[in-house]
Amino acid sequence: MTQETTKFRIAEVRVTPILISDPPLLNVQGVHQPYTPRTIIEVVTEHGAHGLGETYGDADYVRVAEAFAPDLVGAGLGVNGLYAKVLASAERVQVSDLDNRVYAEGLRGSRTLPKVCHSVVSAFEVAMLDALGHELGLPVHALLGGKVRDRVEYSGYLFYRWAEHPGPGEPSDDWGAALDPAGVVAQAQRFARDYGFTSFKLKGGVFEPAQEVAAIQALHEAFPGQPLRLDPNGAWSVPTSLEVAAALEGIAEYLEDPTSGTANMAEVAKKTSLPLATNMCVTSFDEIPPAFASNAVQVVLSDHHFWGGLRATQDLAAVCRTYGVALSMHSNTHLGISLAAMTHVGATIPDLRYACDTHRPWQTEDVITEPHTFTEGALTVSDGPGLGIELDRDSLAALHRRWLDSDVRGRDDAAAMRRVHPDWVTPQLPRW
Amino acid sequence: MTQETTKFRIAEVRVTPILISDPPLLNVQGVHQPYTPRTIIEVVTEHGAHGLGETYGDADYVRVAEAFAPDLVGAGLGVNGLYAKVLASAERVQVSDLDNRVYAEGLRGSRTLPKVCHSVVSAFEVAMLDALGHELGLPVHALLGGKVRDRVEYSGYLFYRWAEHPGPGEPSDDWGAALDPAGVVAQAQRFARDYGFTSFKLKGGVFEPAQEVAAIQALHEAFPGQPLRLDPNGAWSVPTSLEVAAALEGIAEYLEDPTSGTANMAEVAKKTSLPLATNMCVTSFDEIPPAFASNAVQVVLSDHHFWGGLRATQDLAAVCRTYGVALSMHSNTHLGISLAAMTHVGATIPDLRYACDTHRPWQTEDVITEPHTFTEGALTVSDGPGLGIELDRDSLAALHRRWLDSDVRGRDDAAAMRRVHPDWVTPQLPRW
Repeated sequence: MTQETTKFRIAEVRVTPILISDPPLLNVQGVHQPYTPRTIIEVVTEHGAHGLGETYGDADYVRVAEAFAPDLVGAGLGVNGLYAKVLASAERVQVSDLDNRVYAEGLRGSRTLPKVCHSVVSAFEVAMLDALGHELGLPVHALLGGKVRDRVEYSGYLFYRWAEHPGPGEPSDDWGAALDPAGVVAQAQRFARDYGFTSFKLKGGVFEPAQEVAAIQALHEAFPGQPLRLDPNGAWSVPTSLEVAAALEGIAEYLEDPTSGTANMAEVAKKTSLPLATNMCVTSFDEIPPAFASNAVQVVLSDHHFWGGLRATQDLAAVCRTYGVALSMHSNTHLGISLAAMTHVGATIPDLRYACDTHRPWQTEDVITEPHTFTEGALTVSDGPGLGIELDRDSLAALHRRWLDSDVRGRDDAAAMRRVHPDWVTPQLPRW
Repeated sequence: MTQETTKFRIAEVRVTPILISDPPLLNVQGVHQPYTPRTIIEVVTEHGAHGLGETYGDADYVRVAEAFAPDLVGAGLGVNGLYAKVLASAERVQVSDLDNRVYAEGLRGSRTLPKVCHSVVSAFEVAMLDALGHELGLPVHALLGGKVRDRVEYSGYLFYRWAEHPGPGEPSDDWGAALDPAGVVAQAQRFARDYGFTSFKLKGGVFEPAQEVAAIQALHEAFPGQPLRLDPNGAWSVPTSLEVAAALEGIAEYLEDPTSGTANMAEVAKKTSLPLATNMCVTSFDEIPPAFASNAVQVVLSDHHFWGGLRATQDLAAVCRTYGVALSMHSNTHLGISLAAMTHVGATIPDLRYACDTHRPWQTEDVITEPHTFTEGALTVSDGPGLGIELDRDSLAALHRRWLDSDVRGRDDAAAMRRVHPDWVTPQLPRW
């Protein structure tokens, strides 16, 4: 595409699929598996500077990442135009069952080859920015135009959950079950005590809406005046969404994906003053114009894994700003590399109005030497070189070994649910 | 706003208003003055790295730049969030006759305090990126995510013009007059010979539309198959615009601002297949949604001086990409600092489909030691540190001296016209 004249050349690229343990968190599709796959990217420059990136680890993401990795050797650290290169690599190796059609629907919205490529780009882009930061002795935020805040706020991500996975020897923790409003409040209280979170999001779509509304109301009583959100992942019909909205006006700061699809979201939005947020019906740039034209969403939950990286997240912020739509940040199960990336880009966006989501407190494993600790519900953005993190090679090797020893190559929350409820099928939406 | 923890601190900021000579180029409002003001910004870091920026030099821009400059001393080189700081500085010094209302209409669209502040930001942002590039030994394009092309194409900017300014001792050149199709073609031929331009833009709105259509047709005969554009700066009514569009379909690649205002542009766009471009009805982010919703423009002509810098230009590119609107680049009278900035940012935008505009060949003066030379209608983007240019201090001093010795503090093409045609008044639009 262009002569590579940059002074920093990539000498080595490593793609390492891993499996990380995950608690039995419930959602509309089922329950989190004991182990979920992630892909870890390392780039190393000729000068020996390292960069780290992280993305989804389902088999198709790994295949595309592995197809692209050799093409990056010898290239510079410029990140513009990466998408076209990743797409070309994916097409060259004939990732034949992936194409432009939607081939999966799920919690990440519809899955297509372009979307998988954007997610793969995100990991390489972050790794390249991290490496460039190490080359220059500059933090990633400085490579993104500079931070406008020193700390990035996160919200406590509450889940209905079981006490433990059903299988023997599967990962466990001491959180216990949370299956009713009291359990949710107890979880929030521990989150507030341990990490100082002052806003909370509850993953819904698990129980009947009345129970989930009661949980939010109980949170509101326990944490009066503090921002609360509920996200049933599109589980509700339009009328149900409106009932919930009516019950939570003045209590919730927004409802996240109450119903599925832009048209339904627009219908709900028309009849409630509660803002609607999404990470399901607006997950790529081409989904923006119809959603904004119909005023279907008032808050877009960015996710650099969806949108193609940190610069793409800034692009998304610009589009949202232009159209008067708020921006916050979505999270999927992730490790410290992505949390560092989220914090750096979050620090650069002037109009980040809501606390960002993160699954991080639920992950007990990591691949970095000093996992982040939330204080007062926020992380201080690192001013050290790159992302400000260091790879824990032993941990990476152990989690990769787990991947090699396992046949888990994707995430299937419905299958995990069937281990306990053999009749479970992924619910048709709307469920309620 | 945030603790400044960056390792590069600004030790000195200089704001230097200058006057540069300008040929008697004609447009709908009148004629270019013999001298036009620009503001040159220099930032110097504690380590002695220099950065250069350039913007409009009308009195209000200079006042805002001078208000902000001292506030920047001691700050780092992060450019995000500059706009809020410039606006605060402008408001603190009570730039009392500037406010949010439109206080001037002209070739740059409507002028408001926010727009003036964005233009001032652009110069400081470019200077800070240039300085950061010098600190790091990296080109500005690398600080913007990296170039995706090595050369940026420009179009030859044709003007109806007089042979000379009317006053004695005023700047002159050897181009001669161009007041009819033959004169326009001759100008294009010299541009093609000297610089290799392969696409041409004619500034119209000067003569009756039939004459300007004839000029484009003559260019089409002289340069068959090469891209041509006509820009009357909103001079025409909707019916006239449609007549011109009908005459130039298949000949022009786009019409630029044929008529004034988003509503009129939308009406024209509805009835022609010729794309419409603008740098008048979409000059800031808040003007985008209504224009895109009504499909009023198919090409936005970015201008980092309007939009608030190079990162804002990338933001604009993202919004345009999202909405399927093309992006190209507008130019106003500028020197080599801005041309370098335009080339760096142009090199980073993957979907820059059209050759960019530049007034540069008309400017015989510059404030850099090695003014750019177009070859094959393009400039090679510099891979040297920063913008890849060096300040010519003698030239800057001389042009500042000219400013000190003159009472020209703005640009008034109508007043310049009245020196020759005393009855001239700025035409009410539409003129035809």
